[in-house]
Amino acid sequence: MIPNDLSSRISKWFDGSGPGADIVISSRVRLARNLAGFEFLPCLTKQRKTDVLEKLKDAILSLDIGEDVFFVNMADASSLEQDLLVERHLISRQHARGKGPRGVIIAPSESFTAMINEEDHLRIQVFQAGLQLKECWEKINRIDDMIEQKVQYAFSGEYGYLTACPTNLGTGIRVSVMLHLPALKMTGQIEKFFNAARDTNLAIRGLFGEGTDAVGDFFQLSNQITLGVSELDIVSEFSGSIVPRIVEYEKLARAELLTKQKNAVDDKIQRALGVLKNARLISSKEALFLLSQIRMGVNLGRVKNISITTINELFMLTQPAHLQLNKGRPLDPDSRDAVRAEIIRSKLCRN
Amino acid sequence: MIPNDLSSRISKWFDGSGPGADIVISSRVRLARNLAGFEFLPCLTKQRKTDVLEKLKDAILSLDIGEDVFFVNMADASSLEQDLLVERHLISRQHARGKGPRGVIIAPSESFTAMINEEDHLRIQVFQAGLQLKECWEKINRIDDMIEQKVQYAFSGEYGYLTACPTNLGTGIRVSVMLHLPALKMTGQIEKFFNAARDTNLAIRGLFGEGTDAVGDFFQLSNQITLGVSELDIVSEFSGSIVPRIVEYEKLARAELLTKQKNAVDDKIQRALGVLKNARLISSKEALFLLSQIRMGVNLGRVKNISITTINELFMLTQPAHLQLNKGRPLDPDSRDAVRAEIIRSKLCRN
Repeated sequence: MIPNDLSSRISKWFDGSGPGADIVISSRVRLARNLAGFEFLPCLTKQRKTDVLEKLKDAILSLDIGEDVFFVNMADASSLEQDLLVERHLISRQHARGKGPRGVIIAPSESFTAMINEEDHLRIQVFQAGLQLKECWEKINRIDDMIEQKVQYAFSGEYGYLTACPTNLGTGIRVSVMLHLPALKMTGQIEKFFNAARDTNLAIRGLFGEGTDAVGDFFQLSNQITLGVSELDIVSEFSGSIVPRIVEYEKLARAELLTKQKNAVDDKIQRALGVLKNARLISSKEALFLLSQIRMGVNLGRVKNISITTINELFMLTQPAHLQLNKGRPLDPDSRDAVRAEIIRSKLCRN
Repeated sequence: MIPNDLSSRISKWFDGSGPGADIVISSRVRLARNLAGFEFLPCLTKQRKTDVLEKLKDAILSLDIGEDVFFVNMADASSLEQDLLVERHLISRQHARGKGPRGVIIAPSESFTAMINEEDHLRIQVFQAGLQLKECWEKINRIDDMIEQKVQYAFSGEYGYLTACPTNLGTGIRVSVMLHLPALKMTGQIEKFFNAARDTNLAIRGLFGEGTDAVGDFFQLSNQITLGVSELDIVSEFSGSIVPRIVEYEKLARAELLTKQKNAVDDKIQRALGVLKNARLISSKEALFLLSQIRMGVNLGRVKNISITTINELFMLTQPAHLQLNKGRPLDPDSRDAVRAEIIRSKLCRN
C-alpha cells in the first residue's frame, strides 16, 4: 500500500527547489469539505463512516490529476507507517492515531493528499516547494471542482462550505507556508515576528517535532480566518504581502549577522558541523537544531560543498519512523540515536 | 626577568610524563617558613619586608640546586606576567595580586619555586610529573636544609616551624597531587571521592580556572593537618595509600565505562573533538572541559594520533595570560576566544 521507497527519498515539496526556497521551504493550501446528507464525524456511525470513506475514495481515485495516486487505509497501517506519513506532512497526527474507518489518498510526488474522515469528511491539500501559493491554489481549486462533479458537498448559500469545526466554516481554506528563519531567531527578532503574526490573526506552529514546538528555527505560518473573505484574497495577501515582508526581515537579519556577528555565526555553524560529523549518538531534536544552523550556513555562503538538498534529506530521513522503516525494524530510542548519528556522519563526511 | 619562552612551552611537571601520569598529573610538596627575628607579614613594615625579601633572595640565589634559577620582583611584573605565573602554578593568585615588596625565585625547569613574602616570609615548592611525592619530598628537604644553613628559621621546640597561619604550624608542609578523574565524574562516583577526602581531612580544589571550581575533571588533593605528624608520614600515607586507592577507583570506573557505556563515551569524546576542531570562538572554561574529555579518550585508547603532551600543552597555552603574551599584546575576551579557537584547531587538525 505504501510504496517501499517512500521512507528513503525526500518529498518533492521539501527538496529545496522552488522560488525563494532558502527562506520559504514550501507552500501549502488545504480545503475542508463534508458530504451533503451525512452527519459530521462526531455523530457518524461506524457504518456511515465506511460509506463516506468508500464514496470519497472511489470519487477521488477515479480522477485524473496527472499522477497515479494510491490509497492507504489507516486502520490497516502499522504505527510506524502512520508515523512515516506524519513525518512527511502527508497526514495529521490526529489522523494517524484516530479511530474507525479512515484513510488517505496520496500522489506519489506528495504534492497532493486527501485525508478522508479526519476532522471533516474530506481534507485535501496541495504542496509545492518554495513560495508558490497561487500555483497551490489553482491546482487545489481544479481538483476540488473535479471532486464536486462526483459528490455533493455540504454547502450553505449563507455561510459557504459547512465544516465540523466553525473555525473552518466558509471557504474551508487553510493557507500556509513553512519558513526557515534562523537569522531572525539568532538576532533576537523572532518575537517581533510572532507578535506581528498574532496581531494579524495568523497562527504559528513548529514544522517538525512533537506538538507545536518550533525546533531548528522552522515555523509554519497559516491563516485563521476562513469566513467572509474569498480564497483568492487570502492567497494573494499571503503571497503578495505577508510572506514577502517576512522574507525581507529575514534577509536583513542575515545581512546584519554577516556584518556584525560574522565570527559568532561562523562559530555556530562550524560547531554544528563538528558535532554532526563526529557524534556517535544524536537525538532527533538535536539533529534538527544543528542541521538548521548548517542550512543557514549554506544559504549564507559560509558552508561550501554541502547542498541544501542533502541537508533537507537529513531532516527528513533522520526522523524516528523514517529511520526505523529504512533499517527494516523497530529500534529503541538509544539505537535510533546511534543509527541517526551514523547516517548523518556518512552523508556529511562524504562531502 | 621572565624568560621569553616561558609562555610558549609546557611546564615539565605537566608534560604527561612520570609514573601514573594518566591519572596523577603531578605531585607537589611545599614548605612554609619564616625568618627568626622578623614579625609575621601582617605586622611587618615595608622596610622590613624589603629586608626579608633581600635576605631570602640572596640566600636562595646563592644555592646550587642544579639549575640557574631566576628572580622575579612581583612589584615590577606586569599583570599579564603575574597571571602567567599563576596559570603555570608557579605562584599563588594571592602572591600575584599582593602588595608591597615580594618576589619569586623560579627554576627554569619549573620544578622548584620560592615565593618570598606571600603569606609567610618563605614558601618553597617542588613539582614533579606523575606520582613522585617521595622524590618531591627528598628534593625539597635537601633545599630546605641548604637554606637553613644561610638563614635562621622561626622555630619552636614545642610546636616546630612557626607560621603566619596556625593551619601550617609544625611541619609547614603541604603535600598535594593533581588528579584527572573523568571516569569517576562521568559515572557519578565523584561525590563519594569528595566525601571520603573530607572524612580523612583532605582538601580538594580545582586545578585550573578562577577560584576553587573544578573545571574539566581536574582536582587537586592536599593534606590539611601539619602538626603532630612527621613530614615523611604524611608523604608516605599520600603516596602509599591515599593516592593509589583513588587511582584504583578511577581505573575501575574507566573499565566500567568501556564495558557498559562505550557508545556514550565515544559520543562524548568525538563530539568534544568535533567542537574543538571546528569552533571559531571558545572560552577558556569550555576548552578545558572539552580537552579533559579528549584526554580521557586518549588514555582509554579511543583517540589515536593525539598525544597527551599535545593536549596538556593546549590546556596551558590557551589560558588567558599565555595567549596574550604569545600574541605579544593584550586582547579583549572576544579576541582571546577567537585566538584560542585558532590555536586549538591548528594543533588538533595537524594530528
